[in-house]
Amino acid sequence: MAAYVPPVDDVAFLLGRVFGFDQAMADLPGYEEVNTDLAVSVLEEGGKFCAGVLEPLNRTGDEEGCTLTDGRVTTPKGVAEAYRAFVEAGWCSLSGDPEYGGQGLPRVLQILLDEMLSSANLSFGLFPGLTRGAVEALGHHASAELKATYLPKMISGEWTGAMALTEASAGTDLGLLTARAVPNGDGSFAITGTKIFISSGDQDFGGNVVHLVLARLPDAPKGVKGISLFLAPKILVEADGTLGARNRMSVGALEHKMGIHAQPTCVMNYDGATGWLVGEPGRGLNAMFTMMNAERLFVGIQGLGIAEAANQKAVAYARERLQGHGADGTAGPVPIISHPDVRKMLLKGRAFAEAARALAVWTALQMDIAVHHPDADTRREADALVALMTPVVKAAFTDFGFETAVASQQVFGGHGYIREWGMEQYVRDARIAQIYEGTNGVQAMDLVGRKLGLDGGKVPARFFALVKADLDAALPIVGADLVTPAADALARLEGATARLSTQGGAIEAGAAATDYLRLFALVSFGWMWVRMAAAAADMGEAAPPAAARKTALARFFMARMLPETLGLDAALGHGASSLMALPADAF
Amino acid sequence: MAAYVPPVDDVAFLLGRVFGFDQAMADLPGYEEVNTDLAVSVLEEGGKFCAGVLEPLNRTGDEEGCTLTDGRVTTPKGVAEAYRAFVEAGWCSLSGDPEYGGQGLPRVLQILLDEMLSSANLSFGLFPGLTRGAVEALGHHASAELKATYLPKMISGEWTGAMALTEASAGTDLGLLTARAVPNGDGSFAITGTKIFISSGDQDFGGNVVHLVLARLPDAPKGVKGISLFLAPKILVEADGTLGARNRMSVGALEHKMGIHAQPTCVMNYDGATGWLVGEPGRGLNAMFTMMNAERLFVGIQGLGIAEAANQKAVAYARERLQGHGADGTAGPVPIISHPDVRKMLLKGRAFAEAARALAVWTALQMDIAVHHPDADTRREADALVALMTPVVKAAFTDFGFETAVASQQVFGGHGYIREWGMEQYVRDARIAQIYEGTNGVQAMDLVGRKLGLDGGKVPARFFALVKADLDAALPIVGADLVTPAADALARLEGATARLSTQGGAIEAGAAATDYLRLFALVSFGWMWVRMAAAAADMGEAAPPAAARKTALARFFMARMLPETLGLDAALGHGASSLMALPADAF
Repeated sequence: MAAYVPPVDDVAFLLGRVFGFDQAMADLPGYEEVNTDLAVSVLEEGGKFCAGVLEPLNRTGDEEGCTLTDGRVTTPKGVAEAYRAFVEAGWCSLSGDPEYGGQGLPRVLQILLDEMLSSANLSFGLFPGLTRGAVEALGHHASAELKATYLPKMISGEWTGAMALTEASAGTDLGLLTARAVPNGDGSFAITGTKIFISSGDQDFGGNVVHLVLARLPDAPKGVKGISLFLAPKILVEADGTLGARNRMSVGALEHKMGIHAQPTCVMNYDGATGWLVGEPGRGLNAMFTMMNAERLFVGIQGLGIAEAANQKAVAYARERLQGHGADGTAGPVPIISHPDVRKMLLKGRAFAEAARALAVWTALQMDIAVHHPDADTRREADALVALMTPVVKAAFTDFGFETAVASQQVFGGHGYIREWGMEQYVRDARIAQIYEGTNGVQAMDLVGRKLGLDGGKVPARFFALVKADLDAALPIVGADLVTPAADALARLEGATARLSTQGGAIEAGAAATDYLRLFALVSFGWMWVRMAAAAADMGEAAPPAAARKTALARFFMARMLPETLGLDAALGHGASSLMALPADAF
Repeated sequence: MAAYVPPVDDVAFLLGRVFGFDQAMADLPGYEEVNTDLAVSVLEEGGKFCAGVLEPLNRTGDEEGCTLTDGRVTTPKGVAEAYRAFVEAGWCSLSGDPEYGGQGLPRVLQILLDEMLSSANLSFGLFPGLTRGAVEALGHHASAELKATYLPKMISGEWTGAMALTEASAGTDLGLLTARAVPNGDGSFAITGTKIFISSGDQDFGGNVVHLVLARLPDAPKGVKGISLFLAPKILVEADGTLGARNRMSVGALEHKMGIHAQPTCVMNYDGATGWLVGEPGRGLNAMFTMMNAERLFVGIQGLGIAEAANQKAVAYARERLQGHGADGTAGPVPIISHPDVRKMLLKGRAFAEAARALAVWTALQMDIAVHHPDADTRREADALVALMTPVVKAAFTDFGFETAVASQQVFGGHGYIREWGMEQYVRDARIAQIYEGTNGVQAMDLVGRKLGLDGGKVPARFFALVKADLDAALPIVGADLVTPAADALARLEGATARLSTQGGAIEAGAAATDYLRLFALVSFGWMWVRMAAAAADMGEAAPPAAARKTALARFFMARMLPETLGLDAALGHGASSLMALPADAF
């Protein structure tokens, strides 16, 4: 099996040639020293860790899985050591707040590292990913005292984080949750309840596990307005910052899952666990969403990561596997990569992964601008674009990521179904990303129900204008062959958006949601392909290998993937009526 | 978890109302006694066995898996007993040749039973399914002596069958296989070689396992023309028909697979195993294809079976799971089946499963006509339609079947990812059907490379004319709302077919294949929906529940699924060039 190769060449192309990363950073106070060379050298090192340390643990971790013995979680062989080495090397703190010991590097670098983590070992990547999400929520909403106590250790990675939201009867609808938090009279609370599906709910790396738990105060109203957020550590922290007694929480069971076997996904019992309020009472969901939005982007990147890795393996296999004669008449056996249908499967994965990486970099850049730009309007506009793109990245990257994993497995034929080759693990692992952190259906509802209405609809309009301007600018460079299909698809998306805003209503929105989100994603990928092709054309003769094939991939995308927008647009045009006609008992 | 409900009501509607089964059978000598009532009562009984005996073993079989100890295969608890009860009840011999003890019932009943077997327990269904495929090949190609010795026991199910084709370096390209067969001088051959991925390669039910093995004679030419087919039993059969000594073959290992864990998929070692030639030397692939075509239809039905079961579970869950408020303003929590996006996932599965069942019945009817009709031209025409439809059923049913399993799992949210609910097993089990018996890419190549050219292209033309005639006939009954989209999609398919025949060439065919097959399948489903809606409309007030919702499902299919043909058509129109541009080392 070919080893995973971190896509550092493509990163250099994207940052240096497509997104003008050096200038973008120069515009952000504090980031003047950050540039493409720095990013590439950081990611080269990170890539070595991912490919050299984490990928070798991917299949063994899947086979061994996690175990729970006498209430103690054991992760698969090698995982704890790898985690400690990861922390030791400083990878946890890459983008962390320098006030609490972080390195304060841009989001752009973080998401590119996240992709490599996800390619190498999805289960492992969840540990730092969830910790970072918890840090995000605490950073925005926790008291100074909680921040001082917890953030340094969490940012370094010495302590890990977990988010405890879901209960057996409260998943998508968190308003139904029943966990309770009763004041202890000393500023702390006693939290009682059972949570399920808690990723990284415990570990055996040492340190502490910091749970962010949603629960209800005694006088809380029903529904989401009665939910508050609490910090409850596995081990109570003494006044001097050292670890004290165990808190009253325990792992009730490990979930038996389709994949991510190296992740201890826990049923957590809180039996009067001591916790502290984070943010205001009744505003827990709001605080948790700070964490969840960061997590949603992270989960989208997981879809990209799996796609990149699975596609790489499939390409390597297709170059070596000899079957059949050539479609051009070459006597067989020939490498199966010469068969058009195999090429199509491989090209779809590649065209998705590279467009998604570009879109992820663009989105992360908006996040950096939203935090660091000196101009308040610019920050606000960037923040709104991130909000718009978050559900698209989460849902589309994980849907296409899963499809890429399945197609990459298909390239292996029967060998893809056998565990030894590792391809079926990608499919099983990729599947969770479509489900957790809000199912992809929930993401689509977020897009049509909330994000399209941001700033009275001006945010999507601004996004479409931005895409159109880029397409227009690229026209003289890459020609109508590439730009016209992308512009036509954009027009379809604008039409669908207009129909949604005029025909309105929650039923039409719900009926449109997932098709609309996919249309939105395909248009965004087309935009990225035009930008990448234009950047490659700009380089002329000097184009490095990672850039030279961009035009060919862009053409493939326009010819064989973007046409899906025609069907989506037509289906959207038919609206909700055919979905709502059948009574529930007649299905 | 809701129990699987065999779709006998829908079967009664299809046979009685859509396909005029009673008249169709009356036209076939020997089948005058067969009618809808008989079929329904047979399938009701079969359904009871599937739901009552086989489904309860589905998840336990997945959890326990098969084991190999000292060369002996052990299937999961309960499977051997269930198999013997299945044989005892006569289910193996349903459509078997009466000359060898079979009940000789039509293919239509067989495929409907196969669907229920696949819904209840895919792993189990492979045992009788593969035996039947082997019977098919032997029935057409083996000597009278071999047939007399083996067919009665195989048709009864007392002995099982396996097909041993694949080797580590010869999968899709069987021309590369290296297993050898050397004459023993007594009419038998000594077979030596290793085969992989051999489903039902062994079992612990008792009786015998009859292997059909592809191997090369000593003087055989290279490639497919040097391949011959041999029958090699696990236990040698004495002259009096009793079981004698063990043959020189052994199970080298059980494959570790993504799914179908209750199936002992074997690495088989033949160490000078005694075998007998089936058919002519060098014509092994031809003989094997008799088996494989039957198997390909069976595998397509597996996709349908999984889709039906997974969709049923998702519908039941969506009726009971309460989350969120209603899109129509109803205060929450409401059953999630009222959410438009959940409905869409459920309706897609239902609209696929019912169209696929109808198409399967139509195809099986052609198979019955191809064998039993008194008129030779009618037989030949029906046989050609079956040949045309075989790759479509195999590939499209398994692709849509997998997609339905994935969507049904999605309806469960996080619970779908947990093993306890059984939904993730459907996804893992469904996945194999896209790969084995010729990958779905190979099916698509078969469609565009061979089947479109049948009888100089007259066979697809005749099929399109038949669809068009049905659409025209339905127009006054169901109206343009339903017929026009189906007719438009048919026009797209005819256009794509014409382009393929004029632009020709293996590269264009390969580049078009999978998109073309999907377009073909969607058109076929649309055709079936028009026919079903027309039949339901014909019933007027008398429509039973299974028919009453047909119109609603037909409308949904036309509005939200058939538009995919627009994108497929446009992608096909772009041809092969964008697929072939990138050199193999530039991926």
